[in-house]
Amino acid sequence: MSDTGQDDDTTAAIMEATYRALCDHGYPDTSISTIADEFDKSRSLLYYHYEDKDELLADFLRYLLDQLEADLEAIDADGPEEEVLAIVERLLPPDIEAERFRFQRALLGMRSQAPHVDAYREQFARSDTLILAELTDAVERGIDAGTFRPVDADEVAQFVYATVSGALQRSVTLDDPEIIEHHRTLIESYLQSQVVDRTDEPS
Amino acid sequence: MSDTGQDDDTTAAIMEATYRALCDHGYPDTSISTIADEFDKSRSLLYYHYEDKDELLADFLRYLLDQLEADLEAIDADGPEEEVLAIVERLLPPDIEAERFRFQRALLGMRSQAPHVDAYREQFARSDTLILAELTDAVERGIDAGTFRPVDADEVAQFVYATVSGALQRSVTLDDPEIIEHHRTLIESYLQSQVVDRTDEPS
Repeated sequence: MSDTGQDDDTTAAIMEATYRALCDHGYPDTSISTIADEFDKSRSLLYYHYEDKDELLADFLRYLLDQLEADLEAIDADGPEEEVLAIVERLLPPDIEAERFRFQRALLGMRSQAPHVDAYREQFARSDTLILAELTDAVERGIDAGTFRPVDADEVAQFVYATVSGALQRSVTLDDPEIIEHHRTLIESYLQSQVVDRTDEPS
Repeated sequence: MSDTGQDDDTTAAIMEATYRALCDHGYPDTSISTIADEFDKSRSLLYYHYEDKDELLADFLRYLLDQLEADLEAIDADGPEEEVLAIVERLLPPDIEAERFRFQRALLGMRSQAPHVDAYREQFARSDTLILAELTDAVERGIDAGTFRPVDADEVAQFVYATVSGALQRSVTLDDPEIIEHHRTLIESYLQSQVVDRTDEPS
């Protein structure tokens, strides 16, 4: 995308239109044409930049992931426990709005296509790597600071992230946003009981 | 399906053909026609029984789930810990064969359509309920027998199942069967360290 000389405003407008099209139509029924319908600028500008849906959506996933990366970097938590919880909250948002929930549905549709579309798979792999690294770092900081037990940081990160992925998938499949809430609570209680060191506290 | 008077052999043959079509073509490209190509008996028999792909695949999910239910009931484990591990192993199979892995891919495709197809969603909901109930029962038996700590059985079951779902999803998305192996090990070590009661053992 960058090599077509597209400016930032145009990129943002295309990505916004893509988000709305995915929320409204779901992944299978989103096409360059439905995205163009949501796009305020000229259709030809969109068709000029993208040859097909896969190319546009791979760029969209890249854009989304850059935002996630920036959001995770901007987390300003009081300590490692709060940091892990903030990461989990970014992924399993409390009181998720209907539109964002519909978007999670479209995202699962894209995930299910990742085995067949290299450019999607690349972005999901990057996303998994980023999230796991952030979680592992936070857990390691907690161990170093003595507020976490000497757990296997990588193992805790994998476990928390698998729970997040499973929760999103089940919640979307069963059309039940409550599953997101419930699993955020499960992860919080797992951290409290298994990871956070309580030995200094009065019993 | 049952009310069309289809016999068991025909049902099994249709379901086998559906499995092969899903493995070979993936969910989006599976149609009644590609299933008919895999079907040894007459095409008209298949078209007689099913009006469209969704109806056939919903029946296929039901059939699959009946098999899972029978498999879980047939588990003859030495104790509650072995039982939980046997359930997890049924869901995250060791050394998964290429065909079964491709089938998991197709299953994720169906899951991603569940929000749009009531008959799919119904089967996935039934599947989730069944697996969670079996896991919860096994954990409760372990607590009653004193081999497990007095954990929250429902919470442990939800956590294990979310990890299983997340592992399958990531493994399929990233086209990496190793992720299945790795998460089965993670769940085993979680059970060992957090659920199984080790207080009676010599230290």
